[in-house]
Amino acid sequence: MRDCEEAMQSICRGAVDILPTGELEARLALGRPLRVKAGFDPTAPDLHLGHTVLINKLRQFQNLGHEVLFLIGDFTGMIGDPSGKSATRKALTRDEVLSNARTYEEQIFKILQPGRTQVVFNSSWMDSLSAADMIQLAAQYTVARMLERDDFRQRYLTNQAIAIHEFLYPLVQGYDSVALKADIELGGTDQKFNLLVGRELQKAYGQRPQVIMTLPILEGLDGVQKMSKSLGNYVGIRESPDEIFGKLMSISDELMWRYMELLSFRSPLEVERLGAAVRQGRNPMDIKYLLAEEIVERFHGRHAAMRAREGFIARFQRRATPKELPEIRVAAPDDGMPIGNLLKEAGLVSSTSEAMRLIKQRAVRIDGECIENRALCVAPGSVHIYKVGKRRLARIKVVQKAKS
Amino acid sequence: MRDCEEAMQSICRGAVDILPTGELEARLALGRPLRVKAGFDPTAPDLHLGHTVLINKLRQFQNLGHEVLFLIGDFTGMIGDPSGKSATRKALTRDEVLSNARTYEEQIFKILQPGRTQVVFNSSWMDSLSAADMIQLAAQYTVARMLERDDFRQRYLTNQAIAIHEFLYPLVQGYDSVALKADIELGGTDQKFNLLVGRELQKAYGQRPQVIMTLPILEGLDGVQKMSKSLGNYVGIRESPDEIFGKLMSISDELMWRYMELLSFRSPLEVERLGAAVRQGRNPMDIKYLLAEEIVERFHGRHAAMRAREGFIARFQRRATPKELPEIRVAAPDDGMPIGNLLKEAGLVSSTSEAMRLIKQRAVRIDGECIENRALCVAPGSVHIYKVGKRRLARIKVVQKAKS
Repeated sequence: MRDCEEAMQSICRGAVDILPTGELEARLALGRPLRVKAGFDPTAPDLHLGHTVLINKLRQFQNLGHEVLFLIGDFTGMIGDPSGKSATRKALTRDEVLSNARTYEEQIFKILQPGRTQVVFNSSWMDSLSAADMIQLAAQYTVARMLERDDFRQRYLTNQAIAIHEFLYPLVQGYDSVALKADIELGGTDQKFNLLVGRELQKAYGQRPQVIMTLPILEGLDGVQKMSKSLGNYVGIRESPDEIFGKLMSISDELMWRYMELLSFRSPLEVERLGAAVRQGRNPMDIKYLLAEEIVERFHGRHAAMRAREGFIARFQRRATPKELPEIRVAAPDDGMPIGNLLKEAGLVSSTSEAMRLIKQRAVRIDGECIENRALCVAPGSVHIYKVGKRRLARIKVVQKAKS
Repeated sequence: MRDCEEAMQSICRGAVDILPTGELEARLALGRPLRVKAGFDPTAPDLHLGHTVLINKLRQFQNLGHEVLFLIGDFTGMIGDPSGKSATRKALTRDEVLSNARTYEEQIFKILQPGRTQVVFNSSWMDSLSAADMIQLAAQYTVARMLERDDFRQRYLTNQAIAIHEFLYPLVQGYDSVALKADIELGGTDQKFNLLVGRELQKAYGQRPQVIMTLPILEGLDGVQKMSKSLGNYVGIRESPDEIFGKLMSISDELMWRYMELLSFRSPLEVERLGAAVRQGRNPMDIKYLLAEEIVERFHGRHAAMRAREGFIARFQRRATPKELPEIRVAAPDDGMPIGNLLKEAGLVSSTSEAMRLIKQRAVRIDGECIENRALCVAPGSVHIYKVGKRRLARIKVVQKAKS
């Protein structure tokens, strides 16, 4: 039972809804690998961090020995938009679907374990369903209940057309759970209605209805709208290390904590410790570096993460430094000058002891990087941007002290 | 053009809606045999007079050289009621459908010309439709427009469940028109919405949309509810001549005129003449006899119609004649007694001239049959019920006058 409790804690972390109450515990207690389903759009093979909230959760299930059913909803994708209203949603060919699936696999196996992942296509059962079967399926749900779905109700009340086939899609999605005999289905909070339809259909087809788990929709880089490729506020997991690093360094401190909660693999305890440090004066930028490094490392490895960090700092230096920033020359002996003295000479602190205190508070940066070593000596010949606290900034060129 | 006008008159007679305006004329003017569709339920092979309103109209189209597509909606019949709510609407097997079809054929060819009738089953195209095709079909119509159908709107507003597959049935019916390339679809007034869906779908599939023609729903024998087997107020076309005759003789005078309009093949002019005669004193019962004879003759032939009439009169006599009706004996010479004298002797009229006047007014009946021949002589040995006007009734036995 202890194991079950731990598993529950790890699995429930970050979830919005887990329904019905008690059923997830009951399934986990079965002691067999559970079938954990999540559905993905076949038309968007560029996964972004928004998708990974859910994929990370799938990975957690795998860590506990469960089986992931990574469902590619190609059946409806191959129909396209039959109402002909959307030019962009054209029907996909089978080749396109297969090619998209390969692209998915390239991406998801950076997070998921291939051995515990089945990539499945709903066309493999939906293609053999007849019109009569579709009618049988449609008989399992009522118009009134379908119109309870927020977006449908809204459109109905505001006289925006809902084509009848749109009522069939949640049923197809629900039938996927029947075909897969899913124990659990994961989805974004916007999928809650559809996941519940899956429960109804499983019941109608004589199966034990799945547990549904919804996860938050990740905000995009703007911190407001949901992350999406079309809004341009996304971080694609196939983007270059530099792009990922730079985009993550651009977010607000508030969004950084949200991302830390939903995207980081750090334990809740670790994240709590970082929060405490910032409350005690540590620069939130440091946490952003940690986040950006972790994410880049996940998709590109440790080495790429380090290089991205260095690259970012170099670009940051160019960007953050106005050309007109006065260059202060400080003469130092051949063996260098201690950092405290250097800052005092340059007029950025009033005393070496103030410099020591500020370094201890992590308020001194060279080229954007926080320095911790109070005994640091700066040798002649270097030019760097020194920043003390939030306001004091100077480009200091250390020159060789004239022999006296 | 003269032919067209005549055809129009004959075809429009009795129809409630013919839409869109002008399109029927345009089709008739094409000068080719039109494809005239009407759909029938595969579960009710006992046709009654209510069905024949429509079948008679199909026959009129055939008389003008057009082709009838007699559609048996077996596709949905073979699904049954997938919502499981109706125990009676169980799925039909293919054998049952074929057997029902044979039963239809036995019945409809009493009205339709076999050479210009195609009996078609919608399963023959619907069975090969896939779930994806069904979705495509569903994309052609909106939820809001479907909810405009009277019965759906009513149920939605009163929180009575509408299962989603019920939205698919009008689309299937409409798609039948696409599959059949129908020029015209006929249906009861309750089918107007569905017939219009057919137009929409034909448009969506690139066809010239069909003309729709609705026909009145025939009232049952009660004159109030629609004729239906389940209400028990019907006249089945396979019922025995006696049953058909008796049922038709039981209807109200008002309903008789309605049936005369919707069921008789008499010309409008003939019917008008009969109406005029009744307004001038002719017994409406006479018209009922004519109607009953015509209908029995249509389904069972002339001879059967005559026998049914005789049988009815015999039963009517037994029924209409209380056992305690006093038998009046009137003595007549061997060569008989003129009817006027007989009635006077029996005390049913005060004078032979009153008798002559009443006979002229068709107010004298023998065994329920109106007599017109004022010179009629009644021979000794007969026993009949004589009725004069509405009230005067007697059983008169004519006996031989004692030789004087």
